Amino acid sequence: MQLTSYTDYSLRTLLYLATHQERLVTIAEISEHHGISHNHLIKVVHNLGKHGFIQTVRGKSGGVRLALKPEKIIIADVVRLTEPHMNIQECFSRETNTCSLIDNCKLAGLLYQARHDFMKVLEENTLADIL
Amino acid sequence: MQLTSYTDYSLRTLLYLATHQERLVTIAEISEHHGISHNHLIKVVHNLGKHGFIQTVRGKSGGVRLALKPEKIIIADVVRLTEPHMNIQECFSRETNTCSLIDNCKLAGLLYQARHDFMKVLEENTLADIL
Repeated sequence: MQLTSYTDYSLRTLLYLATHQERLVTIAEISEHHGISHNHLIKVVHNLGKHGFIQTVRGKSGGVRLALKPEKIIIADVVRLTEPHMNIQECFSRETNTCSLIDNCKLAGLLYQARHDFMKVLEENTLADIL
Repeated sequence: MQLTSYTDYSLRTLLYLATHQERLVTIAEISEHHGISHNHLIKVVHNLGKHGFIQTVRGKSGGVRLALKPEKIIIADVVRLTEPHMNIQECFSRETNTCSLIDNCKLAGLLYQARHDFMKVLEENTLADIL
C-alpha cells in the first residue's frame, strides 16, 4: 500500500515552496534539490497551479510560489487531488469490482473505516504543520 | 493507494472458508466462486497455510479449511503477511528512499500516523467481525 510518486513529488514541491516563501523558485531548482526529473516536475507544478495551490510568474526571472499560505493548504486536499484513486480494494469502484460479495461485504466496510481514519490524520494537518 | 490483489484474494479466501467451516473446500471451488485464477489461488492458499491460517487435507476428497477460529484471525495480521510492504512513501524504507529531507521531515511523521490509524482499525477486527 503506497501513495504514488506523483503525490510524493507534489507534497515535496509544496514543502520546498513553503520553505522559500520570500522568493520565486524555479522548477530546475526543485528538480535539482530533490533529484526529481524535470519533466515529472513540470506536470506536478502544472497540476498544483491548475488547482490553485501555486502561482506561476512567467518571464526571465520568473518561477513559482505558493498561492496560499501554508496554513491554508490541507494535506488531505493535496493527496485527494494527486492520488489517481484512493480505492483500497478493487470493490471500492463499481467499474473495477469483480467481487461477488460487493453488496453484502463487511470487509469493504472495515476498509472504508480504515481509509477514513487514514485520511482524517491528513485532514487535520496543513502544510504549515509539517514545515 | 491500494492493497494488492494478493491481499484481496487472501482475505476473500479466508472469508469463504469461514462461511463454510463445516466442510473442506477445494481451491477450484473458491476459484469459481470468486472468479480468481486457479494459479493465483494456489499461491494464496500455500502462503496462508505456511503461516498457520489454514490447513490442507490431501487426497481424493481433500481440500482446505481454516486452521483457526475466525475470532482468532486478526485482519491486520493477514494484511501484514500478504502486503509486500506498507511503505506509504518511498522514504519509509532506507533502501528505496531518494528524498534528502528524510532525517528532518514532518511529512513522513504525519504519514506514519495515518498508516498507524489505518492499521489500528484492522488490528481491532477479526475474521469473525466481518462474516
